[in-house]
Amino acid sequence: MLNYILKDENAVYFECGYSCDNEIFIKFQNRGFFITDSRYAIEARSIITNSEVIESRDIIKSARLLLRSLGVRDMIYNPSDFSYFDFVNLSRDLHINFIAKNEFSKLKRQIKSSLEIEILKEAARLGASKFDELSQAISSGMSEKTINFKAENIFRDGGNLALSFNPITAINANAAKAHALPLDERIKIGDLLLVDAGVKYQRYCSDRTRTAEFKDGFKFTKEQKFSNSKQNEIYQIVKEAQNLAIKAVKPGVRACDIDAAARDFIAKNGYGECFFHSTGHGVGLDIHEFPIINPKSTTIIEPGMVFSVEPGIYIENEFGIRIEDVVVVTNDGCEVL
Amino acid sequence: MLNYILKDENAVYFECGYSCDNEIFIKFQNRGFFITDSRYAIEARSIITNSEVIESRDIIKSARLLLRSLGVRDMIYNPSDFSYFDFVNLSRDLHINFIAKNEFSKLKRQIKSSLEIEILKEAARLGASKFDELSQAISSGMSEKTINFKAENIFRDGGNLALSFNPITAINANAAKAHALPLDERIKIGDLLLVDAGVKYQRYCSDRTRTAEFKDGFKFTKEQKFSNSKQNEIYQIVKEAQNLAIKAVKPGVRACDIDAAARDFIAKNGYGECFFHSTGHGVGLDIHEFPIINPKSTTIIEPGMVFSVEPGIYIENEFGIRIEDVVVVTNDGCEVL
Repeated sequence: MLNYILKDENAVYFECGYSCDNEIFIKFQNRGFFITDSRYAIEARSIITNSEVIESRDIIKSARLLLRSLGVRDMIYNPSDFSYFDFVNLSRDLHINFIAKNEFSKLKRQIKSSLEIEILKEAARLGASKFDELSQAISSGMSEKTINFKAENIFRDGGNLALSFNPITAINANAAKAHALPLDERIKIGDLLLVDAGVKYQRYCSDRTRTAEFKDGFKFTKEQKFSNSKQNEIYQIVKEAQNLAIKAVKPGVRACDIDAAARDFIAKNGYGECFFHSTGHGVGLDIHEFPIINPKSTTIIEPGMVFSVEPGIYIENEFGIRIEDVVVVTNDGCEVL
Repeated sequence: MLNYILKDENAVYFECGYSCDNEIFIKFQNRGFFITDSRYAIEARSIITNSEVIESRDIIKSARLLLRSLGVRDMIYNPSDFSYFDFVNLSRDLHINFIAKNEFSKLKRQIKSSLEIEILKEAARLGASKFDELSQAISSGMSEKTINFKAENIFRDGGNLALSFNPITAINANAAKAHALPLDERIKIGDLLLVDAGVKYQRYCSDRTRTAEFKDGFKFTKEQKFSNSKQNEIYQIVKEAQNLAIKAVKPGVRACDIDAAARDFIAKNGYGECFFHSTGHGVGLDIHEFPIINPKSTTIIEPGMVFSVEPGIYIENEFGIRIEDVVVVTNDGCEVL
């Protein structure tokens, strides 16, 4: 049985169904320990059923004393989760073999349970409905900044949902930038808008991108007909690339094969250099999980994996087009959430 | 001259006027180096005038190679700013004396420049105006959650401002909790509401708390008359405690003397055990800076220090009252921002 110590909120939530901003979780043999301070201990005790809650003013020190008293020999940890200060204090004077495993928890969470898949489906359904709401809220002359603020508010649903990440709402040339901060540019008829946004429902993320033309309004469906012929040509290429990648998803294939399905089609059409990111990434409690769907990833796809499929083509100083959905791998293919 | 390496966004912004979410800043003798990736390098070069911008796919590796090529002997770092993984990679095979100084940058930033004070004044003015807006936006029957969501939107000012922190908007007994998550409880006439919120203007924080009774509406002024006599009695004690602490602020006194001015008055009135937090904290780029105003802090107060003065009295299961303003230390006392 693996012993491990966790500090990341989503990693801890996955273990015991609760997390807060000052916590350490320890799994030793078949016992779980959740260490936190007095602000959270009452709430933690009322929610956590599979672990002992320990209240402490200095959670690092308490973790060190606990590890010593338990007689731990080996313990897995993620060296990116602890600050240098905390890890040095935690491990001081302990004769424990600490085993560094980056992404330990994310790898553990790679295959989702049926309950997690149900939650992710509902997150995706809610996220999609927010695209519809957003389409109704945009009017001519609105700045990118205002559209972005509206998107944030709509996706947060009056405080009932959280954001998976800060929405991207990029007009025309801004949609071609990897790092697109909202600008003062105002939207007008004929403009292209790329929206990449998601919600967190019961802490699980949705993630979706649509690119559409502003006509008398927006429709964030996948079927689009752009007035600009170059945009339209490229849109149909991205759409087919996504379709081919989704069709390539089934148990037993390698992640890089899914990536290639989209990337080769885009390259064949002459835009290979304009698609410079991965085809997809796992989605769960974190917005970026495993598997990664890129040319280097040899991960074998298994049922229960949940990831995005999001090819794009970006023409610098002109526009960018991306289409993204999240899929869950089934026994013989995949289902779009 | 001190050599140092920084990774915290506000610490880096203070040095060179720019920051992003993937960066290392190095000060060596009189040279500054800002290391980031291709997403940010163009923007960084256009803004940073006092440091060389280095573009890198692996900023930790680039920092290590730079430190080696510069022939650095001693380098200050904050062990809480680096993950264990990053610091081990950064320092690998380098013959450098890394000097751990927790809070190195925050201590450096303790005394504000006149420009910083002007920005903090404007942040405070904007933050105060948002309290007025919020008072107009609350109506009878609104839930704590809805009030909280409205507060977030108002303080974010349509995306023009950022939040110093997630606002606290707590009704009655919830205002007595140190860790008050917004609930479904709906506000009605006669309820007490505590609001603790701030904005970031040009990245500098405002911070303010007001406690008021919901009558035909709210007035978030310091003058309050509560219908409930216990609430009213305690409000006037907190108000006078804050007044005494503000009066105690001047160059040369110790931070603990300011704390004692508020704490002793509250204790003398029989509520000593109901005031369990510090009287104040420094405010700047970070919402929590130095000096800390508490019973243990022997920091000598100097002109240009900016901190909150926020005594409170909390009656468990009944209500909590806190009044908070930010002050700047002048040559002979202080000014409330």
